Amino acid sequence: MPQLRIALAQVNATVGDLDGNSELIVEWTRRAAARGAQVVLFPEMVLTGYPVEDLALRASFVEASIAALHDVADRLGAEGLGDIAVVAGYLDRRADLAPRTGMPAGAPLDAAAVLHGGRVVVTSAKHHLPNYGVFDEFRYFVPGNTLPVFRLGTENGPVDIAVAICEDLWQEGGPVAVCYRAGAGLLVVPNASPYERGKADVRLDLCVRRAREAGAALAYCNMIGGQDELVFDGDSILVSASGELLARGPQFEEALIVTDLDLPAAGDVSPETRVDADDGTVITIERVTLAAAERPPATEAPDKLGPVWPRLDDLAEVYAALVTGTRDYAYKNGFKSVILALSGGIDSALTATIAADAIGRDNVHVVLMPSRWSSEHSVTDAEDLVLRQGLRARTVPIQAIVDSFDKELDDFPQAGLPAENLQSRVRGVINMALSNAGGQLVLTTGNKSELATGYSTLYGDSAGGFGPIKDVFKTLVWQLSTWRNEQAERLGLTPPIPPNSISKPPSAELAPGQLDTDSLPPYEVLDALLDDYVEKDMGSAELIAAGHDPALVTRVIRLVDKAEYKRRQYPPGPKITQKNFGRDRRLPITSRWRERLYRRGAG
Amino acid sequence: MPQLRIALAQVNATVGDLDGNSELIVEWTRRAAARGAQVVLFPEMVLTGYPVEDLALRASFVEASIAALHDVADRLGAEGLGDIAVVAGYLDRRADLAPRTGMPAGAPLDAAAVLHGGRVVVTSAKHHLPNYGVFDEFRYFVPGNTLPVFRLGTENGPVDIAVAICEDLWQEGGPVAVCYRAGAGLLVVPNASPYERGKADVRLDLCVRRAREAGAALAYCNMIGGQDELVFDGDSILVSASGELLARGPQFEEALIVTDLDLPAAGDVSPETRVDADDGTVITIERVTLAAAERPPATEAPDKLGPVWPRLDDLAEVYAALVTGTRDYAYKNGFKSVILALSGGIDSALTATIAADAIGRDNVHVVLMPSRWSSEHSVTDAEDLVLRQGLRARTVPIQAIVDSFDKELDDFPQAGLPAENLQSRVRGVINMALSNAGGQLVLTTGNKSELATGYSTLYGDSAGGFGPIKDVFKTLVWQLSTWRNEQAERLGLTPPIPPNSISKPPSAELAPGQLDTDSLPPYEVLDALLDDYVEKDMGSAELIAAGHDPALVTRVIRLVDKAEYKRRQYPPGPKITQKNFGRDRRLPITSRWRERLYRRGAG
Repeated sequence: MPQLRIALAQVNATVGDLDGNSELIVEWTRRAAARGAQVVLFPEMVLTGYPVEDLALRASFVEASIAALHDVADRLGAEGLGDIAVVAGYLDRRADLAPRTGMPAGAPLDAAAVLHGGRVVVTSAKHHLPNYGVFDEFRYFVPGNTLPVFRLGTENGPVDIAVAICEDLWQEGGPVAVCYRAGAGLLVVPNASPYERGKADVRLDLCVRRAREAGAALAYCNMIGGQDELVFDGDSILVSASGELLARGPQFEEALIVTDLDLPAAGDVSPETRVDADDGTVITIERVTLAAAERPPATEAPDKLGPVWPRLDDLAEVYAALVTGTRDYAYKNGFKSVILALSGGIDSALTATIAADAIGRDNVHVVLMPSRWSSEHSVTDAEDLVLRQGLRARTVPIQAIVDSFDKELDDFPQAGLPAENLQSRVRGVINMALSNAGGQLVLTTGNKSELATGYSTLYGDSAGGFGPIKDVFKTLVWQLSTWRNEQAERLGLTPPIPPNSISKPPSAELAPGQLDTDSLPPYEVLDALLDDYVEKDMGSAELIAAGHDPALVTRVIRLVDKAEYKRRQYPPGPKITQKNFGRDRRLPITSRWRERLYRRGAG
Repeated sequence: MPQLRIALAQVNATVGDLDGNSELIVEWTRRAAARGAQVVLFPEMVLTGYPVEDLALRASFVEASIAALHDVADRLGAEGLGDIAVVAGYLDRRADLAPRTGMPAGAPLDAAAVLHGGRVVVTSAKHHLPNYGVFDEFRYFVPGNTLPVFRLGTENGPVDIAVAICEDLWQEGGPVAVCYRAGAGLLVVPNASPYERGKADVRLDLCVRRAREAGAALAYCNMIGGQDELVFDGDSILVSASGELLARGPQFEEALIVTDLDLPAAGDVSPETRVDADDGTVITIERVTLAAAERPPATEAPDKLGPVWPRLDDLAEVYAALVTGTRDYAYKNGFKSVILALSGGIDSALTATIAADAIGRDNVHVVLMPSRWSSEHSVTDAEDLVLRQGLRARTVPIQAIVDSFDKELDDFPQAGLPAENLQSRVRGVINMALSNAGGQLVLTTGNKSELATGYSTLYGDSAGGFGPIKDVFKTLVWQLSTWRNEQAERLGLTPPIPPNSISKPPSAELAPGQLDTDSLPPYEVLDALLDDYVEKDMGSAELIAAGHDPALVTRVIRLVDKAEYKRRQYPPGPKITQKNFGRDRRLPITSRWRERLYRRGAG
């Protein structure tokens, strides 16, 4: 039986960085060669980064992607890496479609290429385009309609390898069905599949199911790293044709996952090339045979943790997503350091800790901005955090500045929402001023419970470039903080977060004696309701039937719907759930629909 | 030959306001009856407003829409309006589709219904779903696959009327093709087609072409009014089967367009019901016959301006779009008044004038916020504008507040970008503080040239709820200002905008003697380049080939691409071009691609 050594290169590409991403492909192909691999698989659109959004519609970018792909093939050949079959995603276009209303300009393709012998041997494109959740691919791409199958020689005979792309696995019919008809022994699948809490298990089940349907081993290589709101978690998977797990990559880390795979020898194939894809379309099988090559000798030892890397547990996984998203947003935007306001509360404490884990404590600047309503513990807890972590701290009292506004604004109220917002905005201006002068990225510290209900100040605490915990409900903020401290304790290190910040009752401290529970229910109650309303899209009748308090349902729906404008103005942050108030759950700002109103109208 | 009196009701619906929109349908059907109409046509999704965005995915909202439709039918019957055939858009769902990956939750439909005799007689749904520009309909809807044809009796025999929806006209094949096969004499088309400069001519040409293809008269009824960034302009159209223009509604105004239409008598029809739609799909014709009814006597006189309303010229049309968008954004969000910063420059002068025209001068509050760098003409020009229009003005000097920040921020630079931004942010905080205390909507005054190049301050001049001129290039700002003054002069009124604000060189006045031309080319040069780069998506090579200065191309591309984050944080404003930096031209914030870099890399 032929044996194939395959490498899955789960790398961190950057959107638009054609030079850097080309370098990644060459460098990791070198590493795969040093491990004796005959095939190396890269993620979806690794050459351009993912998602490229409207760049797909710029002819000059598409041309640049195609030119870069050929450059990479040339370089691989010139470096003596032409014997390895390289499968990598890039951006291409269909040249044979005339423009028509509704078709993306230039007919772009979410494409994959097989590079071998210093040449681009065969290309194809994603057949099933996702257009839900974070995906808008009907805006950007036209579907592919071919399944490439390349034949590669091994010591014990040739093997046939088919290529599909990401969503092609998630939808019924299409390339997986045609792979079975084509009789390929291995299906390789470049992916750019963003992290969501709990999604890893879904992916493994999917790979197992599709491998069985395709009658082929299945190699699933995913991107890692943050790109704006998205965080790719890697977690690449290799399963046998019978669904046995053979290899699995680490989460949130670049890695080369190398495995020897027993595959059926390729034999005579059906001459059929146009195949009914069981999804209402016809797919054309394109077969190519690669020139025979010796298996390269391995000069580097296998990875000790592989080929099945240990899994992170639930909280570790979420925390890693937040750290990864924060690190890459800063670095990919050219920031080496961050700045954030420290209040002594748990949200800013966790945000500072994530930032320190992401880019190093020396690069985390914190600002303490006490006001007349700041309690003593606010200051001491914030100072405790600074000492525990060795952050760069400075204190800027805000009272004199607030007073200067009050003096110029005759009759401005000294209490109530306008006065509370003013304090928050003075802090926002200070953060931005320090950032403008010092070049740090401003981090916001709002959590998802606040974002959902609108408990934040526009241009105040919501001013900044990135919000590490914007998709984290308050109850999860506490869990992650406790977990992070426990991790430190287990290693004999100082827990980074002051226990008092975790245990004390939360307060915005914008008015004397203010507590969150003055205006919101306990977070356990609130978060459960938000989860049902926001993530599960339940209506008010369903929410009440699920046991939520009817008066609270009415109130929270009103708060959430009213806060739409604020949420749109909030900075991006790492997405860890299905609905992070990014592209999902987008309501018209001027919408008048409220479950509350409808119930009244109907009843 | 049968004659039919048809009314097109181009009304202003509000997203989510099921009660208010139901009332609109009943009220305007009453008006149509008073004009003796036998058929009244409403816009697309008039019952729910358009676009509903993620509300389409909420089961409770879909159910509420269906229930409201039946309530409207009941009310029309109960009010004695059952003899008029009412065609109106609403939100429905397909009940027969099982959930699957990629399908919008609940299988929602962008639907239309024919109401008659107090009942919902037949329903259908949009077949061609747009998923480009401002449209994301593959996220929200599944396509319809029927063409309803209803037979209505007239004095000289029955007529057959088919229903298609909006995008069904724009794409080839589908309902228009099937209408021809069905032999209908009239095709009625509810629309929600947003305004774009110059689009009106395109629409008329389209209606003429499709009427000829369908072999039927064509009635196109469009929404009017603002909904977030979109502005619907009405401009409803009625053409004969040969393409002759019979009626055309006003722009940006609610109106009932009533016409008598000669139609072929309906005769025997082909029994064929499942028809190849020439677009790869099959559409089912659903025929219904409405109960015979007397033509109602007209009790109200025809509109003096109709049925072919006069057209606005180019600048009048753009100005009307800005006024309409501003008025409806304020009202639909529950604001009766607005507040904005007045600098003495042309941008804030035009913004104030638009606001006064939109919601009345008494409801426009302006704030003069002089700093140490404000020139004398800034103050006098701003005061001149206040006097010309009688706006509610107050002055809040900012220097003492800026000094209070400087005092608390040791070593903060007294000049340069951080110091300039600080002044702008202090003004932003003052606007927001006054708004919080007084309940006005804050208007921003940035123009599209600034937005494109990033010449604005986050949380400073960009702080607010709505930006009336965010889609207006600076050169067009001047044109509109001059035009608005000329309109006033023609009517013997005081020109609202100080001539000095129009003629003086533009300056941000954030540093001594600063002029826009210190850091930007003349706006005639800049705007032409921005139009080619942003609207036309030209690459750098194309831009240079088109005659733009190569160094300027490099510089402007860098500025525009860098400003992506700022633009995303900018408030919404009326969309008047194809690419208003809303959903179009959306780049990943962390993208590293620059035409400039690629050119260097390539050679």
